[in-house]
Amino acid sequence: MMTVALKPVATSRAALRIASREACADGSPSLTAAMPSRNELNFSAGPGALPTPVLAQAQAAIHALPETGLSVLGMSHRSAWFAQVLHDAEHDIRMLLDAPASRRILFLQGGSSLQFSMIPMNFSLGPTAAADYVVSGYWSRKSLCEARPVVDARVAWDGASGGYRKLPTWSALKLAAGGSYLHYVSNETVEGLQFRDPPDLDDRPAICDMSSDFLSRRVDVSRFGMIYAHAQKNLGPAGVTVALIDEALLDRVPADLPPMLDFRTHVAHGSNYNTPPVFAIYVTGLVARWLRTEFGGLERLEARNRRKAATIYDALADLEEMIELHADPAVRSTMNVAFRFRDARLQSMFLDEAAVRGFSGLEGHRSIGGLRISLYNAVSEAAVGELAGFIKTFAATRG
Amino acid sequence: MMTVALKPVATSRAALRIASREACADGSPSLTAAMPSRNELNFSAGPGALPTPVLAQAQAAIHALPETGLSVLGMSHRSAWFAQVLHDAEHDIRMLLDAPASRRILFLQGGSSLQFSMIPMNFSLGPTAAADYVVSGYWSRKSLCEARPVVDARVAWDGASGGYRKLPTWSALKLAAGGSYLHYVSNETVEGLQFRDPPDLDDRPAICDMSSDFLSRRVDVSRFGMIYAHAQKNLGPAGVTVALIDEALLDRVPADLPPMLDFRTHVAHGSNYNTPPVFAIYVTGLVARWLRTEFGGLERLEARNRRKAATIYDALADLEEMIELHADPAVRSTMNVAFRFRDARLQSMFLDEAAVRGFSGLEGHRSIGGLRISLYNAVSEAAVGELAGFIKTFAATRG
Repeated sequence: MMTVALKPVATSRAALRIASREACADGSPSLTAAMPSRNELNFSAGPGALPTPVLAQAQAAIHALPETGLSVLGMSHRSAWFAQVLHDAEHDIRMLLDAPASRRILFLQGGSSLQFSMIPMNFSLGPTAAADYVVSGYWSRKSLCEARPVVDARVAWDGASGGYRKLPTWSALKLAAGGSYLHYVSNETVEGLQFRDPPDLDDRPAICDMSSDFLSRRVDVSRFGMIYAHAQKNLGPAGVTVALIDEALLDRVPADLPPMLDFRTHVAHGSNYNTPPVFAIYVTGLVARWLRTEFGGLERLEARNRRKAATIYDALADLEEMIELHADPAVRSTMNVAFRFRDARLQSMFLDEAAVRGFSGLEGHRSIGGLRISLYNAVSEAAVGELAGFIKTFAATRG
Repeated sequence: MMTVALKPVATSRAALRIASREACADGSPSLTAAMPSRNELNFSAGPGALPTPVLAQAQAAIHALPETGLSVLGMSHRSAWFAQVLHDAEHDIRMLLDAPASRRILFLQGGSSLQFSMIPMNFSLGPTAAADYVVSGYWSRKSLCEARPVVDARVAWDGASGGYRKLPTWSALKLAAGGSYLHYVSNETVEGLQFRDPPDLDDRPAICDMSSDFLSRRVDVSRFGMIYAHAQKNLGPAGVTVALIDEALLDRVPADLPPMLDFRTHVAHGSNYNTPPVFAIYVTGLVARWLRTEFGGLERLEARNRRKAATIYDALADLEEMIELHADPAVRSTMNVAFRFRDARLQSMFLDEAAVRGFSGLEGHRSIGGLRISLYNAVSEAAVGELAGFIKTFAATRG
């Protein structure tokens, strides 16, 4: 059988440096030895790690689905098999969240970024209406900017002057009279800030980008007009976005939207209007099933996520003198822990040594630099324990 | 390890009927035995079969990429690895098509259907300008309808009165004065009609949806303002769409488009603006590499695709008395062969017997019914020979 090899590419400068050292030492340049990253130790901010049993099942499905004998990549989106996949994925997400029947669950393309435009296109109260945006970090700022070609998007609160280290209380928001909706990001992935409670507003609907904490904890879905999240943090591979939309909001959709940009199209066709990303939805369904069965729901998962975050924040306390945590303690995220070493040399040493031990995905977002530890659903307590141990050892030997 | 089983679902009524028969016969109801579909015998109109060596490599990558040690599903879209994947996929497609440097190659989400809206949003010559559409079948009619909320989309030719069995000559088109572009579909997937030659127009750009024959034959890219194709026919899994855009057209893009709907965004960020569908692009890159190396380019591939189509049309000639081919012989597609049995009972018998022998994907599109044999790049001559043999045997025994 022919091989279709892409050129090997090192994933980090650290790995490359080590490769070159090892190559000099024993004369056998082995890229494999230099790249010991392990799936279980992938702390990437996204696309993130997926649960090992889901990976195993996805892998088998690439060759042949047990139900059909065909590769999942060659399955028709009009097959009974895929109708069942869509049904089950929606059902499992609905059960996990205990979402009311009035919330339509959609699987969409284009990531959260396309939602930044589709939301104002669909849910503005007329062409001149305003909408309110909480700007609490990198992604919520982006959602504001990308809405502006479509709607009079106003800033309800802006954390820029404080360097995006805090979050507002709901009563601190400045809301436009007659605003179409309030948009916010429940967990700022870059800065590691997380809202604790659902919005407490007047009767305007809350629309929430939960991309980086969706299905990581219990949420009262009835408090939201719309929740959306791309899959590649907590629930699947890149290429699909899940949305829960209050069907009452669909009455607002203007008549003349292009069909693909009109939520009603996707509702009417059960997320199967044109060819959807079959594989991404399939894997998302496997993860949702895994979350329900392995964990028995979000309560246990939330408890585990809290323990994982506590373990990391506790270990980082040992580095206290050397690092600065980005978030104000009151709004620290359970999903993303952003920090920086005061000494750039130490930071580089930390990353290098972590890479040698198989940890990956620890670099901070390019907009603020530093480091970031992401603790999505698939990251196990064992992996977190291993990373915490490494941090504590690093602190003890470099302190 | 826990399993994350979806309920087994039969893919065809035929398979279920046979399952139930077998269950009665030997008392052991085995769904596996009842679903003998084989990847190599998948003649689906899309998502279609992928080359076996690509499936093998994709499968391995789900566990761990040899270059990084991590699952491809957990790879960061900002990694050096993914930058190389994007680079190589673009390079291989450019080399296969011998595309000029002026053509920007993009990987997009939303399928061809989102392009139906994005094209007029980006490339109309002002808000009141017209654009011309050839309506030659199901998909080109859809492209016209979906453009209408955005542009004054005019019908340059319509094959409806002839039941979409013929295609126009280029000189037969009725073009609007000052029209922004001409849009057409090079291969009508549903009806099985294929244009032989590139457009011969005045200086308005031709924009072509090549979703079902992209990379199946040589194409003079310089004759097109834009070519686009979703991956799930000839080049990858569902979830990514490839576009080649003449950079001169980018000057037309209005200033106020939402960023995700503005082609310039994706050009400026090298198809990596927000998180792209990493896995779908990775597999598309593997297929492009396979097409270049296994076949040494499109000339050999085109010759093979012609032989495959000739084998099927020849075999169908044996069924002459029983069936009706949809397309006029002069515009028959090399990719999709649409036909129907005059006797519905025979058609059902044909499908049932084919399913037992492991063939799948032979049902026609729901809009016109009947049968359809799709012969995309990954379908081998051996598979086509096996199907042709089955057809001839069926003809001999039922004739």
